[in-house]
Amino acid sequence: MIKVTVWNEYAHEKESEKVASIYPRGIHNAIADFLRCDDIEVRTATLDDPECGLTEDVLNDTDVLIWWGHIRHGDVPDNVVNRVRKSVLKGMGLIVLHSGHHSKIFRALMGTSCNLSWREDGDLERIWTINPAHPIAKGIGRYFELDGVETYAEPFGIPEPDEVVFMGWYEGGELFRSGCTFHRENGRIFYFQPGHETFPIFYNENVQTIIRNAVRWAAPVLRIPELDCPNVQRVHNVNK
Amino acid sequence: MIKVTVWNEYAHEKESEKVASIYPRGIHNAIADFLRCDDIEVRTATLDDPECGLTEDVLNDTDVLIWWGHIRHGDVPDNVVNRVRKSVLKGMGLIVLHSGHHSKIFRALMGTSCNLSWREDGDLERIWTINPAHPIAKGIGRYFELDGVETYAEPFGIPEPDEVVFMGWYEGGELFRSGCTFHRENGRIFYFQPGHETFPIFYNENVQTIIRNAVRWAAPVLRIPELDCPNVQRVHNVNK
Amino acid sequence: MIKVTVWNEYAHEKESEKVASIYPRGIHNAIADFLRCDDIEVRTATLDDPECGLTEDVLNDTDVLIWWGHIRHGDVPDNVVNRVRKSVLKGMGLIVLHSGHHSKIFRALMGTSCNLSWREDGDLERIWTINPAHPIAKGIGRYFELDGVETYAEPFGIPEPDEVVFMGWYEGGELFRSGCTFHRENGRIFYFQPGHETFPIFYNENVQTIIRNAVRWAAPVLRIPELDCPNVQRVHNVNK
Amino acid sequence: MIKVTVWNEYAHEKESEKVASIYPRGIHNAIADFLRCDDIEVRTATLDDPECGLTEDVLNDTDVLIWWGHIRHGDVPDNVVNRVRKSVLKGMGLIVLHSGHHSKIFRALMGTSCNLSWREDGDLERIWTINPAHPIAKGIGRYFELDGVETYAEPFGIPEPDEVVFMGWYEGGELFRSGCTFHRENGRIFYFQPGHETFPIFYNENVQTIIRNAVRWAAPVLRIPELDCPNVQRVHNVNK
Repeated sequence: MIKVTVWNEYAHEKESEKVASIYPRGIHNAIADFLRCDDIEVRTATLDDPECGLTEDVLNDTDVLIWWGHIRHGDVPDNVVNRVRKSVLKGMGLIVLHSGHHSKIFRALMGTSCNLSWREDGDLERIWTINPAHPIAKGIGRYFELDGVETYAEPFGIPEPDEVVFMGWYEGGELFRSGCTFHRENGRIFYFQPGHETFPIFYNENVQTIIRNAVRWAAPVLRIPELDCPNVQRVHNVNK
Repeated sequence: MIKVTVWNEYAHEKESEKVASIYPRGIHNAIADFLRCDDIEVRTATLDDPECGLTEDVLNDTDVLIWWGHIRHGDVPDNVVNRVRKSVLKGMGLIVLHSGHHSKIFRALMGTSCNLSWREDGDLERIWTINPAHPIAKGIGRYFELDGVETYAEPFGIPEPDEVVFMGWYEGGELFRSGCTFHRENGRIFYFQPGHETFPIFYNENVQTIIRNAVRWAAPVLRIPELDCPNVQRVHNVNK
Repeated sequence: MIKVTVWNEYAHEKESEKVASIYPRGIHNAIADFLRCDDIEVRTATLDDPECGLTEDVLNDTDVLIWWGHIRHGDVPDNVVNRVRKSVLKGMGLIVLHSGHHSKIFRALMGTSCNLSWREDGDLERIWTINPAHPIAKGIGRYFELDGVETYAEPFGIPEPDEVVFMGWYEGGELFRSGCTFHRENGRIFYFQPGHETFPIFYNENVQTIIRNAVRWAAPVLRIPELDCPNVQRVHNVNK
Repeated sequence: MIKVTVWNEYAHEKESEKVASIYPRGIHNAIADFLRCDDIEVRTATLDDPECGLTEDVLNDTDVLIWWGHIRHGDVPDNVVNRVRKSVLKGMGLIVLHSGHHSKIFRALMGTSCNLSWREDGDLERIWTINPAHPIAKGIGRYFELDGVETYAEPFGIPEPDEVVFMGWYEGGELFRSGCTFHRENGRIFYFQPGHETFPIFYNENVQTIIRNAVRWAAPVLRIPELDCPNVQRVHNVNK
């Protein structure tokens, strides 16, 4: 059983009728709803929960953390960010969605600005599968379309990904590395571009398949102790 | 002309007679001395200088920053670290030496713990050239030896390097990825393992060649404006 | 159930009493014996079988192919090599052991010489786990030792691996990237250095664990049709 | 002075009036003409020259080889391909243009099919700079346009590139990794997608800048002897 925690800042849904009409119980519950299945169990957590809902106990009991944030990135306390970062380095999987590219946790793990260019014109996006045998692409065809998205454009200020699984083509002329994998120490990370709050992206079947695949891919093979920096004994004693 | 700033926390040399006898004018000056040549000009900066000697003006006038620190990593203010990080992302080269693996700036750019295992037994280290055609390996043979070093052992908590140029073999049984390159946005980064304060490593001719090569490799082809995150206009107006 | 085919040129065992005494039924059967388990079924194939035992039918029924060869690399017909290569590109996993670094199939997939330096002094090798959370390292400690091996030394003429999982330290002074992963189109490839015919390496428990882990890691998530090079229709018909 | 050899199969220009009207002296001479400058000297070679114009002497005197081929890939003899491959592994740079993705030399160095999808509709292509500080992108803006190209579409059957410098967006809905770097042993390789024989691509100023940049980037820092596979002496004699 893979244990997933879906984290959402849960701000737009409370402030905007439009967003609330698309995601009445919050983006986190929309994601949780489609993820729950025989091998995946899901809990949710939001910014306004105590400790952002991300206590040491919750993280130790989480195989994969999914992150959605946008307008309140700055309100996530640094100690929570650091706690999440340590969990990733020990092996917890992390899936960062859409505007989460600017979250403190993603920037801390990437080490770069994670900047990009954007516009909100509701363009058609055609998502191409670049790496068709990647576990995250299982069940996805040569490409699929999202009819109305926020456009993200290159250059995207990230380190070279381990693998670029998907790339997005926008009718307005841009392209973007839409689905990228990274690993940082023992944790696997997947960034996925679609998912704006004003478009019902998380009801799209292909998007759901990809996130479900990513959960299974990012779940740790084993959780290992945090790497520390010990003074060690010589291992080879033949000479001395 | 490549403009280099050599930064040193400059603490051991003031506190330890042994270190002072090896580096009487500080590690920074030992490095500056061998670097100065027809195409490289060098200034130095230390922790106790105002703003650590790393003002906006100094960084804007620096092509490659060399970093040596060990026992006072925590005393480098976060705003200085952030300023250096932005310079690297815009294109300034960065060379991190030895115990600098734990500096705030290297950890911030890597996103990982940068932990490792270590011991100070004065082992012989044999440094192997893994990538003999890399510009940083120019003039270095199949391997060379350092007769007395601090041992660093794997696993080393870094993201997968772009290139592993050198690896170190220690007589006591360990090995380490001793010379690694990374790029983060527009800046090139080289980490080099040798260089402990109690061993006269920076007088070794091969070490000097490698650091000089690394300066030429890390110097920016072009300095470009910081990547920002703009709302942009649609580039393609055929359809709408 | 993962279907493995273990391929061995099966020459040394017939020609040398020493090798025959270590591997009386051939290296392929020694490997097959420890691999067979609840989720892995194994067949073997050798150079002298018709079509080297690697017909289209066998390859289509193989999830992971293990390759051991040394003195008869040149006798593997090019059409067999090409057939294996196509299977890998479609998704079949490939594990190349020891002297297989010079096999036609490994060189064809790497595109490089796959050269290295070597000596047969029966050195102690200490194999370090560089990437402790990698599925192939599951159950392996910080390092383990092989008491008597053929030494392989860098530089190793391969493309930059996706991941370096293990590195080998030899008491005689060399080091080597002992366990490397690659992917080529849809196939996963693992190269593992230990395994000389005159040392009983394949009876070592850690080596067995690593090869069993590698089988599970290299088994395809999905087998997909060979990528071809079609003339396709325009996908976007808004404009024209 | 960088010594460039521009190789062209030189077939379309002889067979098609349309192509001849665009490139009256052949694609090779169009490329040679814009490359020649203070630090670059150029010779040309074609398929019908003795030994394809690529003798050992020519290759030893070439820093960077540029390759254009399309309908006569199969007519390049294997021994010539192998000779070029060895030169690349020793450090000669290689720039492969457009339909050269299917050349024997590119496929031999990649180890994969190098397949892709294509159509010849004269689409507008917008080439985005993904890696703006890369030496090959010097002088190129955020994007530039080619008004009428052959479309190449993903997936592109190549190993993960070292760096994706450019990506192409096509008005008909496709995208492609248009500018990719690789290194194979000591040689640097750049693949660049634009360049179809029926479009006057090589007169485009941005394309010319990119190819000129790529020549300077691919020129070897040093030419080193071919890596061989020697039996070597133990380097460390303390123990035995």
